Amino acid sequence: MLPDPATTAACWPRAGIATLLPALQAALREPVLTSPAARAHYGHGEALPDDAPPDAVVRPRDNGEVAAVARLCHEARVPLIPFGAGTSVEGQVVAIQGGVTMDLSLMDAILDVSPAALDCRVQAGVRRLRLNEALRGDGLFFPVDPGADATLGGMAATRASGTGAVRYGTMRENVLGLTVVTADGRILRTGTRARKSASGYDLTRLFLGSEGTLGIITEVQLRLQGLPEAVSAATCQFPSVEAALEVAVGVLQSGIPVARMEFANAPQMRCCIAFSRLEGLEALPTLFLEFHGSPAAVEEQALAVEALATGAGGGGFAWARRPEDRSRLWKARHDALPANLAHGRGRALMGTDACVPISELAACILETEADIAATGLEAPLIGHVGDGNFHLGILFDAAVPGERERAQTLAHRTGERAIRLGGTCSGEHGIGLHKLDLMAKEHGGALDLMWAIKRAFDPYGIMNPGKLLPPCDGA
Amino acid sequence: MLPDPATTAACWPRAGIATLLPALQAALREPVLTSPAARAHYGHGEALPDDAPPDAVVRPRDNGEVAAVARLCHEARVPLIPFGAGTSVEGQVVAIQGGVTMDLSLMDAILDVSPAALDCRVQAGVRRLRLNEALRGDGLFFPVDPGADATLGGMAATRASGTGAVRYGTMRENVLGLTVVTADGRILRTGTRARKSASGYDLTRLFLGSEGTLGIITEVQLRLQGLPEAVSAATCQFPSVEAALEVAVGVLQSGIPVARMEFANAPQMRCCIAFSRLEGLEALPTLFLEFHGSPAAVEEQALAVEALATGAGGGGFAWARRPEDRSRLWKARHDALPANLAHGRGRALMGTDACVPISELAACILETEADIAATGLEAPLIGHVGDGNFHLGILFDAAVPGERERAQTLAHRTGERAIRLGGTCSGEHGIGLHKLDLMAKEHGGALDLMWAIKRAFDPYGIMNPGKLLPPCDGA
Repeated sequence: MLPDPATTAACWPRAGIATLLPALQAALREPVLTSPAARAHYGHGEALPDDAPPDAVVRPRDNGEVAAVARLCHEARVPLIPFGAGTSVEGQVVAIQGGVTMDLSLMDAILDVSPAALDCRVQAGVRRLRLNEALRGDGLFFPVDPGADATLGGMAATRASGTGAVRYGTMRENVLGLTVVTADGRILRTGTRARKSASGYDLTRLFLGSEGTLGIITEVQLRLQGLPEAVSAATCQFPSVEAALEVAVGVLQSGIPVARMEFANAPQMRCCIAFSRLEGLEALPTLFLEFHGSPAAVEEQALAVEALATGAGGGGFAWARRPEDRSRLWKARHDALPANLAHGRGRALMGTDACVPISELAACILETEADIAATGLEAPLIGHVGDGNFHLGILFDAAVPGERERAQTLAHRTGERAIRLGGTCSGEHGIGLHKLDLMAKEHGGALDLMWAIKRAFDPYGIMNPGKLLPPCDGA
Repeated sequence: MLPDPATTAACWPRAGIATLLPALQAALREPVLTSPAARAHYGHGEALPDDAPPDAVVRPRDNGEVAAVARLCHEARVPLIPFGAGTSVEGQVVAIQGGVTMDLSLMDAILDVSPAALDCRVQAGVRRLRLNEALRGDGLFFPVDPGADATLGGMAATRASGTGAVRYGTMRENVLGLTVVTADGRILRTGTRARKSASGYDLTRLFLGSEGTLGIITEVQLRLQGLPEAVSAATCQFPSVEAALEVAVGVLQSGIPVARMEFANAPQMRCCIAFSRLEGLEALPTLFLEFHGSPAAVEEQALAVEALATGAGGGGFAWARRPEDRSRLWKARHDALPANLAHGRGRALMGTDACVPISELAACILETEADIAATGLEAPLIGHVGDGNFHLGILFDAAVPGERERAQTLAHRTGERAIRLGGTCSGEHGIGLHKLDLMAKEHGGALDLMWAIKRAFDPYGIMNPGKLLPPCDGA
């Protein structure tokens, strides 16, 4: 749920921005933006229409400019909000206390690629699809794929994940190190290029997922993968949610190194079939699978999964061996959001995600489907089933009194349910503004340690204030 | 190098321990140990004979007792040093300021195993081999294998890794969550049972590798793997270090999912052949390989590696398909330390490790071999080549003036070299006491953030003082 605006109102002398602007401009090559249109553009991500514009937008070109801006905001006690591609969905970039939004998209250099080390270093503003285009010539790719064409800095800041995580891990496993600018303007490096380290506290993992509340990520060192020799994809449909998830768990237990394993429930398939004109598929619980490896390994993996699926009552195991068929299939998967919006015919969509132990996923999804039915809203369900992670796209009509609140309550109960089943209220979208009220339930007293880190790293609380951490007594 | 004892002397009123003992005993079911023999037993790990006994040893039986001891030490400002199996090698458990050592080995319950979720929860004192024995009946195993039969709590606290990391990751990738007792005695949980999360700061990864300086790990939630259907092992020998490492890099670039890939240089092979009576192997640079998967996948992976090896001039590709042959081979690998000690005929052994990008590993090893030769000491080299990680076992005669110092200087230069080549001064042994003087070189200004965390979590500096973090201005 959105926090009460009364508790998130500006807590700094807003008039001070006028005196800060000349100093900001003197520190930057690009003009500081203060027009209403620019401020409105930077006041929201891709989520619900919760929107609050910053007072100014800066676009630094290098680490030095980032540090200069941080120092000025730190001294003036002005909020500072990092901004990548604006694709976050939990309100992470909404400037609820105004202040300065820092657009990092001009810092978009691919600094170094090493095919021999299977790593690269990029500035925070590099986008995922462009990076993979640049890597293809070296036979490499970066496997974290959240769907959106996000920046690598934003993906690091939200600990992004997505369809490839079941095989290749999330940003947690694929970032080797960072360059970070602290709240008071120091430029620091975390981690090294080594694949592992036992040297000191893991600052890299601490900044991953910190949503801009501890500092600004300006460079990211990434692990890369060799492009697989062979790729194959398949779909399989099931009579029930339980049957589909029994196969998913069986794949993991058998150690079959599936590269992607996605689940869509019947309402989600209905939307996808209509929007993407999918042939040969019905509105039934469905697994989308992808296999990477040598041609023989891919064939063997796929046959092993087909055997599991057949044993569980799955039918219509359909292959997509040609690249164009695979692309069409995965495009349909990635188009789930527009498919749901099209199905909604003008209704708004509230996305939410949750993640549970894979043993609890079937129970969690069945309970959630019953909850959706009881709520009387439509909310197609799709997810990264190999990680125990799923999404709801809750459709609601903002013009109908109470419908937005019912959608929020459904999202909230989905997070609560995941926590009760041993999981987390967010597997990959993060906390932002929308899940603050689940943090105490999930983390209990450990929230005090998070606040201790926040105060130690950002004593004036300028970094993306009001996000990730719910208010605490000492805050 | 070891820190100057003058700077690590007791900084608390040592006489106070006498008044603390009755309160400690009242909080614990097991007797507090203060005999010289008990104190001596807990004064060192498995490293060099650097040794400093604590003033007392406590053996808690549950989280409540751990918390009570922490509260008492916190109030009395007495150092508190967590102790698992005592297998750390960088001085992590040496009680350089005296105080209370906490032996967690009585907390050895396997709390929960879920074959369906592929996870388990254990108390910190459970040892690795016992856990894997308990899991075997369910067809599961825990893949992090540092060699020593360490406790899972100790492995978490040092971010342990080992031979399986190239395929399955280190503790960083295989710990889902922790129970932690803070310096002031709060019992907190970090993480969840979900495989991934984007909910809040990653406290789990912060405690992993913190070497007891931020709190006491009392429970560990672990990801498990299904036992592979087929396992196969092989050795291959090469005319040069470069040829062996060219193959190792090629395996990674090809995405062959090798389960273990170890390298031993010629002097190391000489020791292993003599000690383990290995037949058919010569004192040449050697790769030890293991493959996990279906029978067909294992066969295909092994053939692909053999082709790479043959292309690089490798010879004597020898299979170990029978379990007893594999066991003998891996026992020889794990017996590298006693092999080196036997070769040393009474000399002491100083172990060190370093980790670099895999593209720099050949250069790093060649430079290190030249450095060893110039130093005039023997120092066999072995390592987890798939991670860019290697170990030196530096043999020295403590009775020869200056020889220990030459060994320390060689270890120090090895860490410096790794840092210069983009890596870390420790891939898996940690910092403890012995690598404090490399921390500033590796982390630069980021050390200030580590100190900020330390002060926020442990304001009186009681948790394992003098380890991991070199002194700083504010310390």
